[in-house]
Amino acid sequence: MTRHKTDVLAIGNAIVDVLSQVPDSFLHDRGLSKGHMTLIDAGQAESLFSAMGNTKQMSGGSAANTAAGLADLGSRVRFIGRVRNDTLGDAFTRDIRDLGVAFDTPAASSGPSTARCLIMVTPDAQRTMHTYLGACVDMTPDDVDGNAVSDAKVTYLEGYLWDQPRAKEGMRKAMRLCHETGGKVAMTLSDAFCVERHREEFLHLVEHHIDILFANESEIVALYQAKDFDSALQQLRGKVEVAALTRSEKGSVILTETQVHIIDAVPGVSVVDTTGAGDLYAAGFLHGFCAGFPLDACGRLGSLCSAEVISHVGARPLTSLKPFAQQALKP
Amino acid sequence: MTRHKTDVLAIGNAIVDVLSQVPDSFLHDRGLSKGHMTLIDAGQAESLFSAMGNTKQMSGGSAANTAAGLADLGSRVRFIGRVRNDTLGDAFTRDIRDLGVAFDTPAASSGPSTARCLIMVTPDAQRTMHTYLGACVDMTPDDVDGNAVSDAKVTYLEGYLWDQPRAKEGMRKAMRLCHETGGKVAMTLSDAFCVERHREEFLHLVEHHIDILFANESEIVALYQAKDFDSALQQLRGKVEVAALTRSEKGSVILTETQVHIIDAVPGVSVVDTTGAGDLYAAGFLHGFCAGFPLDACGRLGSLCSAEVISHVGARPLTSLKPFAQQALKP
Repeated sequence: MTRHKTDVLAIGNAIVDVLSQVPDSFLHDRGLSKGHMTLIDAGQAESLFSAMGNTKQMSGGSAANTAAGLADLGSRVRFIGRVRNDTLGDAFTRDIRDLGVAFDTPAASSGPSTARCLIMVTPDAQRTMHTYLGACVDMTPDDVDGNAVSDAKVTYLEGYLWDQPRAKEGMRKAMRLCHETGGKVAMTLSDAFCVERHREEFLHLVEHHIDILFANESEIVALYQAKDFDSALQQLRGKVEVAALTRSEKGSVILTETQVHIIDAVPGVSVVDTTGAGDLYAAGFLHGFCAGFPLDACGRLGSLCSAEVISHVGARPLTSLKPFAQQALKP
Repeated sequence: MTRHKTDVLAIGNAIVDVLSQVPDSFLHDRGLSKGHMTLIDAGQAESLFSAMGNTKQMSGGSAANTAAGLADLGSRVRFIGRVRNDTLGDAFTRDIRDLGVAFDTPAASSGPSTARCLIMVTPDAQRTMHTYLGACVDMTPDDVDGNAVSDAKVTYLEGYLWDQPRAKEGMRKAMRLCHETGGKVAMTLSDAFCVERHREEFLHLVEHHIDILFANESEIVALYQAKDFDSALQQLRGKVEVAALTRSEKGSVILTETQVHIIDAVPGVSVVDTTGAGDLYAAGFLHGFCAGFPLDACGRLGSLCSAEVISHVGARPLTSLKPFAQQALKP
């Protein structure tokens, strides 16, 4: 795969994260479903934002977080996502480029404003997300630059993109181009509710279009409507080239048609905010994958990157992830 | 296997457990290695016993605990182990028979007294065991009743038996007879220190003589001198028909040549004393195995039985295990 100029092309919603630490009662009083991502409209975003009080704003978005982690690790990475030419859009663009991620999706000059994700972090370190998709809803197949896909070893897609019919068409285009040019399609199932919304399509994707699947326990259990993790694991077996299944404090499981690796979570991590845990796991895993690491080392690198991001508030690493690559190779 | 009159024949050291709850300093002051089993002589047993203060005495021994669990679950089970015709030996015999385990190894009329295991339970629920083997050291191949072996679907051996050369000869005889009569040989590696003492032999047994292997994480890591659990798992793969690897709060992993099942620990268990955890896991697993349960249900039954025994002091269940069989089949 040496002719590929990029390691990973990540395609996802370009979102600015707005974080606030709230008590459980904040969710309870509003009937919000803890641990999940819910889509909201501009009006809901406005009223929830004012209720959240003191907030921190920072660049986010699931696939963009993964891209940021990959760049930090030293991978060559590009991001495709749609912002508006407004203050938040400019901040997103400046921020992701500063991190070393190539990003040149043209900003929309009209239509909805740049997307934001209102993230409520409860004392148990769980994050509950309400996303106003804004400019993201207008992603079309034209945003998927064919050269960007054919240049990449891996094209990484987030399941959230299936929520918009035109973006979904773009993803179909990306998957086709990727396979035609010898790349691997990677995808995260994103969220158990997202899986519920698109189960039939996701099952088809897993069997026919995805080479590297990322899912957490609740997502893979939701996909197969399974009674437990092991049952989902047995159903997934043989259907995908590589699957990396994350299980929070239970670590992760790497599955191929012939291998199963059981990777422990990094011990002794004090969990502050799980936002970005899966995104950074994917970053570590894909960095190792593109660098030719054995699969167990890919999993360990995913765990180490994930452990960094859950040890503080926010979905982007605060320390350099680079030393983790060596650590993952020689545990 | 319908011609087998017994489900499981368990062979092991016949030991009376002497339990005491002690602070960590009790181990520290005496340089005792927490979590492991150490062999001691009669004099050491005497002096440690007096230091332990208030104790509870109850029938124990690893394979005997497994036999007790199997009988409670409704399996047809026999035990072979050597006691002396003394008070403790009489108590052991009466106790195991009361539980429904067939036991007719003749009690020694001379030689060392019945074995006892001094078990120190620390506040973290770990047990540290010092065993005076007493009458057990005189087990010979003659104690291994050939009919008992050929009558059993599964002959289950404890690794501790490899510490005595004559007992080891008896185990070789049992494995040969078992395979000649269409049975399965099951074995537990018993303890990481025991694995260190017999690594080369145990590696040979795993590859050539054992059909169903039981080991906990530290034992399997010690066997392969592996850097972590996953690495040991990869080395074990393909070398044994079935392996059930227990990982404390991380649950267990069932491995065959073509399958891997990941079984979670029973959630929400308040751990009081881990004595007997592995023994009762083996009881649950083997009961399921002999009853023709799918392997994942065998693992779940092992977990449920193990969870019962760690929730109180002592290595024998305090409540009936029977309802767990249905629960394991329909989680």
